Amino acid sequence: MEFQSYAEIHARVKALPAADRLAEAAARARDAELTKPAGSLARLEQCVFHLAGWQGRPKPRLDKVHILIFAGNHGIAARGVSAFPAEVTAQMVANFERGGAAINQLAKLHGAALSVTALDLDRPTRDFTLTAAMTEEECLAAINAGAAAVPERSDLVIVGEMGIGNTTVAAAIAAALFGGGVAEWVGAGTGVAGAALTSKLSAVEVGIARHAGALDDPLAILQALGGRELAAIFGAVLAARLRSISVLLDGFVTAAAAAVLARLAPGGLDHCLTGHVSAERGHRRLLDRLGQQPLLDLGMRLGEGSGAAVALGLLKAAVACHDGMSTFAEASVSNRNGN
Amino acid sequence: MEFQSYAEIHARVKALPAADRLAEAAARARDAELTKPAGSLARLEQCVFHLAGWQGRPKPRLDKVHILIFAGNHGIAARGVSAFPAEVTAQMVANFERGGAAINQLAKLHGAALSVTALDLDRPTRDFTLTAAMTEEECLAAINAGAAAVPERSDLVIVGEMGIGNTTVAAAIAAALFGGGVAEWVGAGTGVAGAALTSKLSAVEVGIARHAGALDDPLAILQALGGRELAAIFGAVLAARLRSISVLLDGFVTAAAAAVLARLAPGGLDHCLTGHVSAERGHRRLLDRLGQQPLLDLGMRLGEGSGAAVALGLLKAAVACHDGMSTFAEASVSNRNGN
Repeated sequence: MEFQSYAEIHARVKALPAADRLAEAAARARDAELTKPAGSLARLEQCVFHLAGWQGRPKPRLDKVHILIFAGNHGIAARGVSAFPAEVTAQMVANFERGGAAINQLAKLHGAALSVTALDLDRPTRDFTLTAAMTEEECLAAINAGAAAVPERSDLVIVGEMGIGNTTVAAAIAAALFGGGVAEWVGAGTGVAGAALTSKLSAVEVGIARHAGALDDPLAILQALGGRELAAIFGAVLAARLRSISVLLDGFVTAAAAAVLARLAPGGLDHCLTGHVSAERGHRRLLDRLGQQPLLDLGMRLGEGSGAAVALGLLKAAVACHDGMSTFAEASVSNRNGN
Repeated sequence: MEFQSYAEIHARVKALPAADRLAEAAARARDAELTKPAGSLARLEQCVFHLAGWQGRPKPRLDKVHILIFAGNHGIAARGVSAFPAEVTAQMVANFERGGAAINQLAKLHGAALSVTALDLDRPTRDFTLTAAMTEEECLAAINAGAAAVPERSDLVIVGEMGIGNTTVAAAIAAALFGGGVAEWVGAGTGVAGAALTSKLSAVEVGIARHAGALDDPLAILQALGGRELAAIFGAVLAARLRSISVLLDGFVTAAAAAVLARLAPGGLDHCLTGHVSAERGHRRLLDRLGQQPLLDLGMRLGEGSGAAVALGLLKAAVACHDGMSTFAEASVSNRNGN
């Protein structure tokens, strides 16, 4: 799947596929017969219905889960907005490739496939306080890299990211897409405070002001503020939707990237679940704007898909119950009506 | 492990073992070296430190997890306090034994051992609005059945329950232990409303009033209000503590049973984690009183250990990260100080 232009993306998002309502209804009908009080598995049941709808089968599976990590570097990192130096992006990509990061352990635990796409790490996007982070060509290339990482078929795609400075970018995108005070979107990221946090706030304020004329089109916002990994995540979330594959979002950065699709098309994130709400300041607010309810609230703030990968355990539990439980009739258990 | 008398229990809880602080400190030291921003796995890290302390090893494991389900029947069920008939307790025990319930799927998913202890199901405890639910002998027998179900060694014990009418019992115990308006402790259970909910409220009010003279000793409260599965859970949580085994609590009923130990001994639940906060009205309030912070908040209300078993996935994720991640030095990743 490759997009040739913004115009093509604008056209495609006007006709996004919907979930299979028959499969979802069949899953609901089965759930009503399982040996438990109606509704007692609550959010887990809702997740099963979501997966049934997007997988198009009454008993959803999570045998083939793909975790897609995208990494990028950011000109804005030179402004001291992060607690870590920019070279950590490439070092962590190497760590992913050697299997030493948190996401590797989580992928292994759940038997999920992990792919890491490093996007021109030696060519950071430009500092968005001075100029647009990317050209249209660069932004499209990153979007297409994200789309290309999505397999033809998958039971579920998890998107994650690595990029020193990218919570600054995510805050800028969220502010540009949804407005509100910049301070409400800017948080501690990997752990900044004091002068570094002030730099981060200032960078976002200046960036938003500089690109005020380009904030009408969500794709223009993405291009102006960056970064490559956010564009790739947008591309992956869009490509997954076009293939009717459900997506499990991770933290603030993935939500900001996915928000571009939400602003392009009403219901654009109907195929998405959110794994967790992170400790990053703007995340809860952003999820509220997106109508996304996180599965977990554990104070995590690591990125790299880790919150979503932890939440994958909940989805596996939900699917296992739905798949394996007996019905009232099979188990000869009296239902509340004495049936 | 067998307790001969309440006096023996009162004596044992005066000298409960503590966590291994050296093992916990070693786990904290390892965590500080792992390739992630300090504290970024948040609650997951805290769970690892807890498990390290109680397992007495710097790298905790979750290879041998034991899920213990206790089932009992309640005289109070005859007062129409549940949406399901009392025979469902035995039917669900049969369902557990055939592998058809939610907890079976969750145990299988996580490779945990599941044991089900049915406690005199054909001999319900007495209606606590009329008399004490159990004699001292019956209560001790149930406590000892719970203690006997705890293995000599375990990486983690999960306690769960099944018993039509037992959220009524749990509400009565919580009200007796912690006071407050009865209405704040009584919830919908398996799904009661209207007249059944009024019956439930009334039963708890009458029960508390009838046994007002016996509410000084938490063990007397347990005996007066019941039921056998709650006494067994209390016994299991106590026995686990005496063996320094960490316990993962499930919902409102297990919290109420464990609360008996909390009231007997300050810090009595230091070896416990709480898997989730359920939809049952009194659960959050009870967890606050116990100083327990739930890992999940998914609106679940099934019991049978299911919320804890779903949360087990989070603990497995936490342990997998702590065990498998590379250190900054191993991965040649720059730490925030440029080390």
